[in-house]
Amino acid sequence: MEYPNFVEAKEVYIKTDRIQGNMVILKESEDDSLYFLMFVGDAEITAIAKEKGLVEPKRPLTHDLYLTILKDTGAVFNRIEIHEMHENTFFAKVYVNINGEEKIFDSRPSDAVALALHEKCPILVNKKLLRRELSPEEVQEFEMIVKTVRF
Amino acid sequence: MEYPNFVEAKEVYIKTDRIQGNMVILKESEDDSLYFLMFVGDAEITAIAKEKGLVEPKRPLTHDLYLTILKDTGAVFNRIEIHEMHENTFFAKVYVNINGEEKIFDSRPSDAVALALHEKCPILVNKKLLRRELSPEEVQEFEMIVKTVRF
Repeated sequence: MEYPNFVEAKEVYIKTDRIQGNMVILKESEDDSLYFLMFVGDAEITAIAKEKGLVEPKRPLTHDLYLTILKDTGAVFNRIEIHEMHENTFFAKVYVNINGEEKIFDSRPSDAVALALHEKCPILVNKKLLRRELSPEEVQEFEMIVKTVRF
Repeated sequence: MEYPNFVEAKEVYIKTDRIQGNMVILKESEDDSLYFLMFVGDAEITAIAKEKGLVEPKRPLTHDLYLTILKDTGAVFNRIEIHEMHENTFFAKVYVNINGEEKIFDSRPSDAVALALHEKCPILVNKKLLRRELSPEEVQEFEMIVKTVRF
């Protein structure tokens, strides 16, 4: 299926920084200059790190508990979409097949990403939410502008 | 149904302390001297506080997302049990009816308690995990013992 306004994020990176906090970065491919960035809490970064095989919690996390139960009900996750930003908050949707019918649920993007990694279903990000990395030339140009601005 | 080794915790208290962290206290009734105590993380205390109506998160929490999906599947939660402590970790079970059959899932007690409050299903605690509050006489007696011990 094609979703013209979305890109599929095949790469999920996490970064924890004492000052900035926990960041999740999504990219279509490793060398793509477009990226999606969000800040998440400790529990959310742990859930995502666990799905990426970076940590191995001793006990089932919240996601593990519910996804194990959901598996038993026969629910199948089709995809997740990070579709909007409103008042500095990102919004996501989870698409699930329940008894042969597709249902859509509102979700925090951090939950949706952990879920998608666990269920190995596509992560779609609205193109309008992507930022672009600056090229070395642009960085230099901006530095020049900053230098010529009088404060 | 009767569970001879368990008490049903009708009271759920939470306490956050800068030094000790987040505590969840379960009691059969308000004036019962027996209680169950566990320490939980920030996300877990938020989920429990939300279910008790103490905080109102702007976005659906992890529990909300999954319990909304599970409701749609027709799954019904029967009860949760905090049944064991092993190497300083408590273990809980979640009893769920899926397609007319009762299934049991391993869970962290903090997740199980948040789930039970959300679903309004019974919280059972194994009697062997309960502590007893000391009476004022016992506190005095122990203080005397401490005073007479030579270090």
